[in-house]
Amino acid sequence: MTAPIDFYFDFSSPYGYFAAHRIGAVAKAHGREVVWHPILLGLVFEVSGGRPLPSVPMKGDYSRVDVPRTARFHGIAYRHPSKFPVSGQAPCRAYYWLAQRDPAFAQRLALALFHAFFADDRDISSPQMTVDVAAEMGVPGPELTLALADPAVKELPRVASRRAIDKGVFGSPYFIVDGEPFWGNDRIEQLDRWLGSGSF
Amino acid sequence: MTAPIDFYFDFSSPYGYFAAHRIGAVAKAHGREVVWHPILLGLVFEVSGGRPLPSVPMKGDYSRVDVPRTARFHGIAYRHPSKFPVSGQAPCRAYYWLAQRDPAFAQRLALALFHAFFADDRDISSPQMTVDVAAEMGVPGPELTLALADPAVKELPRVASRRAIDKGVFGSPYFIVDGEPFWGNDRIEQLDRWLGSGSF
Repeated sequence: MTAPIDFYFDFSSPYGYFAAHRIGAVAKAHGREVVWHPILLGLVFEVSGGRPLPSVPMKGDYSRVDVPRTARFHGIAYRHPSKFPVSGQAPCRAYYWLAQRDPAFAQRLALALFHAFFADDRDISSPQMTVDVAAEMGVPGPELTLALADPAVKELPRVASRRAIDKGVFGSPYFIVDGEPFWGNDRIEQLDRWLGSGSF
Repeated sequence: MTAPIDFYFDFSSPYGYFAAHRIGAVAKAHGREVVWHPILLGLVFEVSGGRPLPSVPMKGDYSRVDVPRTARFHGIAYRHPSKFPVSGQAPCRAYYWLAQRDPAFAQRLALALFHAFFADDRDISSPQMTVDVAAEMGVPGPELTLALADPAVKELPRVASRRAIDKGVFGSPYFIVDGEPFWGNDRIEQLDRWLGSGSF
């Protein structure tokens, strides 16, 4: 029995989106489960001093080349969202609300929300859009709408973000496997080898 | 006749060191030359707002795991320097002074200086150490010592850094090929595919 891979990401992170497409196959090849942890990078940046990529001088310009190229490199559908970056509050709340009952379904919803945002340019920061995407997967709209406004549910993304910070998470995507941290979609190759060898 | 790959790096950048070991083979496989451009990231950071990795909260701690692991991943010798980060002024000056006469020899010197710093823990920020490393390759010590203090030579790293900034370079390593920018040792795979396909 091996420990699962912890996968941290922000719903507004394109590299998190790419990783969400890729981590499942890598984990499966090594007989590992993946626990998804959507977080709010804004809370992380308060501690790390980081800031959203598009607003970083020079690096922001580069990301506008690198993100779509990286999507093509991996063969992942990508259309840059009209509104970007956005808050991941609504999709995070939906994820954690559903994960309490059915983690596997919540993962599929997270991937659908990512896809809605980064491939179909649907603004998932809007609670209604998050409800619409979930409804397309069979989640009752009125029930989710109520949940998104529930103070207990609203607390879940903040709790998850604080726990992630405590584990050293400072970016998206970020993986922890058996205590070893891997930051970035471009560390999945190292994670893959690590899983195969136990270390290297 | 294809244009060379422009390879920008700072002598105090471990990821630049890894890239210096790897870019030659990738370029050769596609019949390209590589022009090496050591720069001073300190000057870049004045424009980009960046700062040395070890001093960035959380990310600095992560880099102390990621750097040696990435060295092992690529099979590159690495011993974390006792003094780090350091100024790349002396090795930069030596590089540009030699590159004016013999660019290929200057590249070999740059790799030797990188190796001295990141594998043998020799402090190449000291002009005398840079002279010693060069002397082991047959460069006359007294002549290089004079060159390192020559105002015209001292200007060369600054000119190179300013030119790099004008081209959008904000980190190390950074590659530009046919106008396409690639940032990071972990973008060499994309660069490789780009060289093979003309784009993707």
